Amino acid sequence: MTEKIRIGIVGHGNLGRGVEVALTHCPDMELVGIFTRREPSGITPVGEAVSVYSLDSIDDFRDAIDVLILCGGSKDDLPRQSPALAARFNIVDSYDTHNKIPEFYAAVDAAASSAERTAVIAVGWDPGMFSINRLYGEAILPEGETYSFWGKGLSQGHSDAVRRVPGVKAGVQYTIPSEKAIARVRDGEQPALSTRDKHVRECFVVLEEGADAEAVKQAIVTMPDYFADYDTIVNFVSREELQRDHSAMPHGGFVIHCAQSASGVKQVMEFSLKLDSNPQFTASVMVAYARAAYRLHCAKEYGARTVFDIAPGLLSPKSPAQLRKELL
Amino acid sequence: MTEKIRIGIVGHGNLGRGVEVALTHCPDMELVGIFTRREPSGITPVGEAVSVYSLDSIDDFRDAIDVLILCGGSKDDLPRQSPALAARFNIVDSYDTHNKIPEFYAAVDAAASSAERTAVIAVGWDPGMFSINRLYGEAILPEGETYSFWGKGLSQGHSDAVRRVPGVKAGVQYTIPSEKAIARVRDGEQPALSTRDKHVRECFVVLEEGADAEAVKQAIVTMPDYFADYDTIVNFVSREELQRDHSAMPHGGFVIHCAQSASGVKQVMEFSLKLDSNPQFTASVMVAYARAAYRLHCAKEYGARTVFDIAPGLLSPKSPAQLRKELL
Repeated sequence: MTEKIRIGIVGHGNLGRGVEVALTHCPDMELVGIFTRREPSGITPVGEAVSVYSLDSIDDFRDAIDVLILCGGSKDDLPRQSPALAARFNIVDSYDTHNKIPEFYAAVDAAASSAERTAVIAVGWDPGMFSINRLYGEAILPEGETYSFWGKGLSQGHSDAVRRVPGVKAGVQYTIPSEKAIARVRDGEQPALSTRDKHVRECFVVLEEGADAEAVKQAIVTMPDYFADYDTIVNFVSREELQRDHSAMPHGGFVIHCAQSASGVKQVMEFSLKLDSNPQFTASVMVAYARAAYRLHCAKEYGARTVFDIAPGLLSPKSPAQLRKELL
Repeated sequence: MTEKIRIGIVGHGNLGRGVEVALTHCPDMELVGIFTRREPSGITPVGEAVSVYSLDSIDDFRDAIDVLILCGGSKDDLPRQSPALAARFNIVDSYDTHNKIPEFYAAVDAAASSAERTAVIAVGWDPGMFSINRLYGEAILPEGETYSFWGKGLSQGHSDAVRRVPGVKAGVQYTIPSEKAIARVRDGEQPALSTRDKHVRECFVVLEEGADAEAVKQAIVTMPDYFADYDTIVNFVSREELQRDHSAMPHGGFVIHCAQSASGVKQVMEFSLKLDSNPQFTASVMVAYARAAYRLHCAKEYGARTVFDIAPGLLSPKSPAQLRKELL
């Protein structure tokens, strides 16, 4: 590969800005531009020489972009954008509504397959790196239990969901692992724990003027997929408090697989992340998978793919021979 | 896949016995038999109904075995066995002499490619799961440093190397991470550390009658690839002491990737293993990759592969749709 992989970014929230930053660490890629549904002149890219275009003009770039990285939200943006854009471009997205992945995959796969495009969906850390580690644990040591813990951290997907509730002006959501549950898992007890047993969700919400606090709270705690299955705490704060105390976006968590390879022989695999910036990390994962998407498309591997379908080596700018020599 | 994947095991040391045990957890696989260079009647399988054959008869099983799992040592067995058997069977091995992997890969690839067989080499945890985590770290967060620590644990490859020194009757080797080095990495200091700075190697050796202790010690500490680059301690013990104090085979370690996705934004990825039995874990990894080898061969993906070339999903008995639904 002598030519650079040409990337377009769709959407310029925290994730889109993270992709811009991540691309600066990848000399084998170049950023063609940022595409927005907003007025392009209202967008300020992180990089000085970066172009911003209206998303309406994206079809003009069909020969100028190798992979589009979609940085919209899973609730409203991606279900529409991913299939539509996968019919015209190779894409990577970070769709993260776990229980709707099968139907989302089917829609994107149909669009990408018939257009001979490659779409890598649900990329990031969960779904993403955590999913891979759940799979490795279960496949290597089938006689065991896998536990995923998240936080303490700000969850982009859940914060996004909170902010879309009518009456909410601004807000964030933290996922907090239950200390008691972690201790039981680390002890090798292999307890039966629901996601609800393992975590608490805490929201800090700024209300719009005149909004009904109780109605907002109910809309949040009963929201299916996002909050209904959890103990959820909703705090109302002022705009000033939110900005002062809740503008960093740390996150993290771990996947622990505890198993016995034979009676009494305990084997523990653990993967963990400690992230100062959740969107910048998710963005970094997406950029690595954009490299894979490009290579898969070059190899005529069309249709939708997830992290499960993609060999680790495809993420690296190094050649297979170099990887064997340097990293194996 | 309705038929079971038919497996043969070559070699019946700790690793071969581990493969036997790991296969009992895999209902999609069946063990055809164990193949040994020793007298078959001298081998006692873990399972009662398991057949043992002479390795000389292996060509009689070319239509009866889908994948051979090679459980010999990297120093003397695999450089000969892997290319020879990859010319007649699909194979998985755990070749672990890191700096000779390129030439080993070339030899196996040539044999497997021309015979239209699939060979997955260097499978286990290092090389293997640790390698994958080094790659993910570097590919996702290029502006960072990756640190691999091993132990405290008994290393099969290095123990094997010790036992092959003339004058050694029996022996084991422990790899011990340096506490000081770990503390510096966890502090996010990103120090420059050689493998020698990070670990100490300690051997417990039983001499053959009449052997020259000093000559044995010198042969061990100066052995290239295995000991020459480390601080190595050699202790001589009685056969009784060795059996009493050194017959368990625990191991473990971790791969830490510390990076900054932007100035001052720290991101830490960590993978760790705590293993009661090193050979049983390595065996479990090999069995999962035997499933991948079988599928790659069915897809006419011939030649040598490493863990870098194999998508995570190929390790699981579940279908891609099931994996997306259950684990993504």
